[in-house]
Amino acid sequence: MIRATIIGSGNVAQHLIHAFKKSNGIELSQVFSRQKESLSHLVEDSKIINDHSQFLEADIYIIAVSDSAVAEVSSSLPFENRLVVHTSGSVPLSELHPKNRRGVFYPLQTFTKNKEVDFSTLPICMESEFDDDYTILENVAEAIGSKHYLISSDQRKSLHVAAVFVNNFTNHLYQIGKEICAEHQLPFEILKPLIAETANKVQHLSPLEAQTGPAKRNDLNTIQAHLALLTDNTQKEIYKILTHSIQQSNVKKL
Amino acid sequence: MIRATIIGSGNVAQHLIHAFKKSNGIELSQVFSRQKESLSHLVEDSKIINDHSQFLEADIYIIAVSDSAVAEVSSSLPFENRLVVHTSGSVPLSELHPKNRRGVFYPLQTFTKNKEVDFSTLPICMESEFDDDYTILENVAEAIGSKHYLISSDQRKSLHVAAVFVNNFTNHLYQIGKEICAEHQLPFEILKPLIAETANKVQHLSPLEAQTGPAKRNDLNTIQAHLALLTDNTQKEIYKILTHSIQQSNVKKL
Repeated sequence: MIRATIIGSGNVAQHLIHAFKKSNGIELSQVFSRQKESLSHLVEDSKIINDHSQFLEADIYIIAVSDSAVAEVSSSLPFENRLVVHTSGSVPLSELHPKNRRGVFYPLQTFTKNKEVDFSTLPICMESEFDDDYTILENVAEAIGSKHYLISSDQRKSLHVAAVFVNNFTNHLYQIGKEICAEHQLPFEILKPLIAETANKVQHLSPLEAQTGPAKRNDLNTIQAHLALLTDNTQKEIYKILTHSIQQSNVKKL
Repeated sequence: MIRATIIGSGNVAQHLIHAFKKSNGIELSQVFSRQKESLSHLVEDSKIINDHSQFLEADIYIIAVSDSAVAEVSSSLPFENRLVVHTSGSVPLSELHPKNRRGVFYPLQTFTKNKEVDFSTLPICMESEFDDDYTILENVAEAIGSKHYLISSDQRKSLHVAAVFVNNFTNHLYQIGKEICAEHQLPFEILKPLIAETANKVQHLSPLEAQTGPAKRNDLNTIQAHLALLTDNTQKEIYKILTHSIQQSNVKKL
C-alpha cells in the first residue's frame, strides 16, 4: 500500500481523495486542511489535520492548492527528504522547496464540484527529480486507473497553453453561441448535440480533417453575411481572426 | 406512409436516406442523383433516377445539395404545387422556386461520411409556407426520432452563425491545441479527455458557470506567460481577443 497525504481541500483535492478511497493500492493517510468542514463528507475526522505538528510519515505528499500558494505551502512543510508533489498545470517543479524530493502529479482535466470524474480516461502528467520517485508516481496513477505521461516542466507550460485553447476558449465560444441564440429567441438546447458531436469527432479524426464551414470552403459570401449579422464588436473580431486562421491552415496544408 | 424523394447524393442526403430506410412511417420513393454509383450501397437501383422525366409523385421532395445550388435545383423541378424543402442552414426559404409549396428541413449537426448519425439527439430546424405542410415536416422528423423546432429563415441565419462558433471555430481551437502539442513533442491524445469533458460540461451547466482559466480568474501573470510562450502571431491574436472577451463576460455578469 502507498500511504498518500493530501494537502488542500479544493476541487482537485476532493476528487483525488475520492479516487484514492476507491483505489486498489493507495491508503489515504491524512488530509491537511484549514477548513475541516468542507471535507467532513469525504474523510473521517481523525484523518483531517490542520496543524503542522500532526503530519504522519507517508510515501507521498500531494499539494493540491491554488497555483500561487504552492511554493509557500511546500516550504512550510515540517519535514525533509520526503516525496512532495504538486498538481498544477502551470507551476514548474522548481517552485517546490528543495528540502524535499520534488515531483509533479498534474491531472489534465476540468473538474466540476460534485460531479464524479472518470479517472480511467484521465491523463496524469508527471515528473520527478529522482527516478525511484517516478515509480511511486506511476504506481499512484495506476492505482486510480489513470493513464500517465512523463512531461517536463517546460512541456507542461506549453501543454497548459494548449489546454486553455481547447477548454477555456472553447467553452467561451459556447457562451458566444448561447448569446447569439438568446439575441434571436433561439433555445441554446438546439446547439448542444452539435457541441457534443464536434468534440466527439476529433476523438477519432484529426481536427484538420474534421474542419468544415465557410472559412474552410473559403465561402466569402457567407462570411460577409455572418459578419453583417453580428452586432457585438468583440464577436466580430473573434469571427474574423478565427476565419483568417482557418484560411491560413488551408494554405499550410497545400 | 409518407412518400419522400431526396434530391442529392452528398453527406446529408446519404444520412437522410439511411434514416428514412430505418424509419417507421417514411417510404423512400426515389433519389435523384447525377452520380448513381455513390448511392449504390444505400439504394436499390430502380429508385435512383437522373432524369427529370422520371420523377414520381411524392408527399415531400427534399433538396440536399450544396447551398449555392439550391435555387437552381428547385427551379429545374418539372412539377408544381408539391412540397419542396431544402436542408441548408444558410439558405432562406424564399430562395426555393415559388411554383412549389416551400419549406425547410435543416438538421443541425455535423455529418461525417461513413459515421452513423444519432437522429434521436438531432435537432431539425423547420419552417413551411403553409400550415398543413408543417404537419408533414413534423411527421417526417418524428418518424426518424428527431427533435424539431419551428425556426424562421431569419432565425436560422443567426443560428447558423452560432453553429459556426460552437462547431467550426471550436474545431479550429482543437487544431491549434494540436499544433502547440506538436511543437513541444506532446501527444495530442493527452488533450482528448479534456476536449470531451469540456463539451460534456455544458450539456448540464451553462457555459458561463462552466468557465474556468486565467482569463476568468483575471490572472494577468499567467496570461502574460502564455502569450510569451506562443510563437505564432495568429495564435497570439486569438489568445488575446478570447481572453479579452472572457474578461468582458466577467464584467457583464457583475
